[in-house]
Amino acid sequence: MPEQTVGSEIERLIQLLSRLPGLGPRSARRASLHLIKHREKLLGPLAAAMAEAHDTVVICSKCGNVDTRDPCMICRDRQRDPSIICVVEEVGDLWALERSGALRCRYHVIGGTLSAIEGIRPEDLNITGLIERASQAEVKEVLLALNATVDGQTTAHYLTERLATAGVEVSRLAHGVPVGGELDYLDDGTLAAAVKSRRPF
Amino acid sequence: MPEQTVGSEIERLIQLLSRLPGLGPRSARRASLHLIKHREKLLGPLAAAMAEAHDTVVICSKCGNVDTRDPCMICRDRQRDPSIICVVEEVGDLWALERSGALRCRYHVIGGTLSAIEGIRPEDLNITGLIERASQAEVKEVLLALNATVDGQTTAHYLTERLATAGVEVSRLAHGVPVGGELDYLDDGTLAAAVKSRRPF
Repeated sequence: MPEQTVGSEIERLIQLLSRLPGLGPRSARRASLHLIKHREKLLGPLAAAMAEAHDTVVICSKCGNVDTRDPCMICRDRQRDPSIICVVEEVGDLWALERSGALRCRYHVIGGTLSAIEGIRPEDLNITGLIERASQAEVKEVLLALNATVDGQTTAHYLTERLATAGVEVSRLAHGVPVGGELDYLDDGTLAAAVKSRRPF
Repeated sequence: MPEQTVGSEIERLIQLLSRLPGLGPRSARRASLHLIKHREKLLGPLAAAMAEAHDTVVICSKCGNVDTRDPCMICRDRQRDPSIICVVEEVGDLWALERSGALRCRYHVIGGTLSAIEGIRPEDLNITGLIERASQAEVKEVLLALNATVDGQTTAHYLTERLATAGVEVSRLAHGVPVGGELDYLDDGTLAAAVKSRRPF
């Protein structure tokens, strides 16, 4: 954007918006214009919501979830089954599992995966906290809900070894055909896994 | 997002972000997490930039551009050719033309197109201001840089009629093959226009 065209305040807004995932320079410009057009109904409230989030959001010291209180709502929730800890890579995965409504358990966000290429070692992830929590008497099962990627599965193997002494059952998510998925578009590995884990109809 | 999972501050941030063009509910969640993860480097500055834009951005009373001063930088710029007014639908179009660097003129943002279906009439657009500006002695040409859509072209015809008494030359953008475009993928209308307006090589 040439300097003569827009004020530096708008340029700065565009530049910061373009750093959001999913927004490039072009869509950041569109978004800024949309914000300016809806100044009272969107720009003002969004500025306030961001300032509020900036001031209040904390990382749960127990599980790594984000919330406005520590411990987070999930760790405080007494209705949840304390015997299962579901391990996820990122907070977004935790949210996805919560939306699925499949289980009402506690979580543990390790904050990524081991990666030789990116130089991420066990001490870079929140693993020590997980081992401690898994060693508590009330915990019976650790469900490794990591991504089905090479790094995710490497991390799952590493965690299984580390958890061997904690006296818990370690489980992982099932592989199979996604609900609504077409066989023709599935990769061979998934299809083979789905056949191997076939269930009585 | 179930109420038990995230605080209402985060929910509100997600809900507002999902109203930006180009962001749906899923990408708004991703963007919020990204913002929370980069709290000091992105969330704080973006909140401040939005608050600043909210407080300072105004619409130029002369041309309809957005800027932090009125008249805007372009209307104040004395280096620009005052004899051409380039008419655009939206501020985003003005920015696109500025980026192209094709001409250093004044602009006029009419704020949309006439539309029978959406009930947008001439009095809903910033047309009176355009006629006034075009009638000034220094203005020799009005370039209608409206979208090549049905509504855009209807509006261009309407503006041409209205400008007949202003004593200015009315021009429009050329149709043709986009630079880098492949003929095979072009529609017939564009190809026909490109042939009709062919130039010596």
